Amino acid sequence: MALIVQKFGGTSVGSVERINAVADKVIAEHKAGNDVVVVVSAMGGETDRLLKLANEVARNPNSRELDVLLATGEQVTIALLSIALEARNYPACSYTGAQVHIRTDSAYNKARIIDIDVGRVNKTLKEGKIVVIAGFQGIDEHGNITTLGRGGSDTTAVAMAAALKADECHIYTDVDGVYTADPRIVPAARRLENLTYEEMLELASLGSKVLQIRSVEFARKYNVQLRVLSSFKEGPGTLITGEDENMEQALISGIAYNRDEAKLTVVGVPDKPGIAFSILGPIADAYIEVDMIVQNVGVDNTTDFTFTVHRNDYEKALAILKKNVAKLGTKNITGDNRIVKISVVGVGMRSHAGIASKMFDALAKEGINIMMISTSEIKISVVVDEKYLELGVRTLHSAFELENGSNVEGDSRA
Amino acid sequence: MALIVQKFGGTSVGSVERINAVADKVIAEHKAGNDVVVVVSAMGGETDRLLKLANEVARNPNSRELDVLLATGEQVTIALLSIALEARNYPACSYTGAQVHIRTDSAYNKARIIDIDVGRVNKTLKEGKIVVIAGFQGIDEHGNITTLGRGGSDTTAVAMAAALKADECHIYTDVDGVYTADPRIVPAARRLENLTYEEMLELASLGSKVLQIRSVEFARKYNVQLRVLSSFKEGPGTLITGEDENMEQALISGIAYNRDEAKLTVVGVPDKPGIAFSILGPIADAYIEVDMIVQNVGVDNTTDFTFTVHRNDYEKALAILKKNVAKLGTKNITGDNRIVKISVVGVGMRSHAGIASKMFDALAKEGINIMMISTSEIKISVVVDEKYLELGVRTLHSAFELENGSNVEGDSRA
Repeated sequence: MALIVQKFGGTSVGSVERINAVADKVIAEHKAGNDVVVVVSAMGGETDRLLKLANEVARNPNSRELDVLLATGEQVTIALLSIALEARNYPACSYTGAQVHIRTDSAYNKARIIDIDVGRVNKTLKEGKIVVIAGFQGIDEHGNITTLGRGGSDTTAVAMAAALKADECHIYTDVDGVYTADPRIVPAARRLENLTYEEMLELASLGSKVLQIRSVEFARKYNVQLRVLSSFKEGPGTLITGEDENMEQALISGIAYNRDEAKLTVVGVPDKPGIAFSILGPIADAYIEVDMIVQNVGVDNTTDFTFTVHRNDYEKALAILKKNVAKLGTKNITGDNRIVKISVVGVGMRSHAGIASKMFDALAKEGINIMMISTSEIKISVVVDEKYLELGVRTLHSAFELENGSNVEGDSRA
Repeated sequence: MALIVQKFGGTSVGSVERINAVADKVIAEHKAGNDVVVVVSAMGGETDRLLKLANEVARNPNSRELDVLLATGEQVTIALLSIALEARNYPACSYTGAQVHIRTDSAYNKARIIDIDVGRVNKTLKEGKIVVIAGFQGIDEHGNITTLGRGGSDTTAVAMAAALKADECHIYTDVDGVYTADPRIVPAARRLENLTYEEMLELASLGSKVLQIRSVEFARKYNVQLRVLSSFKEGPGTLITGEDENMEQALISGIAYNRDEAKLTVVGVPDKPGIAFSILGPIADAYIEVDMIVQNVGVDNTTDFTFTVHRNDYEKALAILKKNVAKLGTKNITGDNRIVKISVVGVGMRSHAGIASKMFDALAKEGINIMMISTSEIKISVVVDEKYLELGVRTLHSAFELENGSNVEGDSRA
């Protein structure tokens, strides 16, 4: 008998019909002889409805009270799902974040989980009941209701699985697993059987919206076996775990992309210490997040400094740079918000040279010009003109032979 | 400086506009130099929406989970009202029933308050904040969420006022006080300045829907000064208190009516001990509530036994009686579901004879036939044909001169 934590998001519980379908999935897991703890989000659209109400009352709603408001969304779902389970004669018991002591810090709207007291959950499981827990919410040390921020239900599920030492944590989504690339762009994209936390983190932060980054970090930290499954069709999904010597080791796991980027370049700034800070300091002060940063070595004591930001922050960042133009001693400021970032990700590349050159070669053969390059231990990202998004992703998917899964160690021609 | 508990019901907080209007009322009380604790219901229609969802999921929703679901309604309101207060720069803090330890028994859907730990509320008041509390809900000794049943927010407000030893508990409704009769039937009806708990209880149970009966009982038990006010217009409302020698003592406070009644008569049953039980036992077993009971002394060793039930239970009660007809040894069973009950209520009648005769005389002069009579210490009720409802109420209102408030002790001609 295993202990399984299941998590269903807003789309999966978006209507009474969907909640009934989720109840059937939960019961199937229970019937298979497992203890089941279910974590659910608010019904699809509910959080937005509540936010709209709050914004009608005040332009900047008080953050403590906003969490009191938003926490009702998940509370509705836990009650309805438990009602559905009870109606099918499967004893169930719902708990809010406060009731199972999901203790967080006091950072309203984006609280972080500190610990979970699993006593009550274990007691309820021992009574043979299915436990249904509200995701996304907790309680601080003073008993105030907090929420974890958008997508926080994934984190609740993983934290719960870690605290309960669950065998697996199943994240149900609207896709049946993690793919080698976005199937809307690459029809030949293949579902991955398994993936490491590191790869999933790179894929998540690079724009694959399957899982919330924080939940994967949490899973890695506490070594929670994470499985991405579809709410709507059967299948084994994708298992996300730590590295394992016995695991089939792909060189490249997948191709990710992100179209929410824009780049800014400060041209010909004096090449001296402190220049990066004088450029990015004012950007950070304006709460603009910077993604890639590239600085070339200068030839005439000046250098070009390029960085990317979210496309929504492009105009704001540009204005800040222009205001500081004199102080920076730059010749010129340029920018481009019609760019995309394409990345190849895989733990296998750690031990294999040649991935980068293969990537650049494949893109060059299609005439795709690379504007920026950035690398980490397990990924290589390039920035290209947005018109090359689909072509670039397909080209790389095929160059690394991801469609047939043959690029495993020892079998690779890289 | 006084401590005031204010309670606003579903209609008063039914929209963002209304919540803003409530915020202004709360601030006015606070500006007057008082500490303010606000108890609110779910937004009008919200409880019904949630119930509908539950009933779509299961025909008989699990009662524990139904309370988890329904409790979200008030939680939404406390958050929105606190957001509105904070946006006006009046520090506010919302609490669910669980957060302020409104401890109840475990009778889901109709729980009763056992005690309230006011430590947290008092601490928040001392910080100069307005406290906003979710009505209708509590928590049992095991930490399960409970609700008090329909109208339970009135009870929360009164219990809170009792626990905090508040100076007054203001119940905001859609009427500006308690009237001598329903103004829709008697245009000359007059708002009462004050009223005793006993009178309010009789008026409430007789069909005046201003206040929930349990909340008035609670107020009487703990001697909470209760004031009924309008959410929509200014005015002193009606103060409900214990009897006070200095209080202007009306003979008759008001005329109440109830059109939800039906009567059943068992004709010619043997006049012997145990007959009442043999008639009403099966009725009680079917969970039908009986209101009035009248039994005449028999002349030929038989008697007629008449009682009233809610009009919705009429057919069911009739069927039960007919099934038992042989056992009862009756000649005949008759019934009438086109009746109404009209009552005159007033603590003054305790010490004054002649109220009953004046009542019967006034009705007789209008040709209104009385079918049943029932009395208590401070009320006299009659059952008449429903066609006489308006005429009967108006006749009694005018017979006791309620329109000009002159029927006070010493001034009465009764």
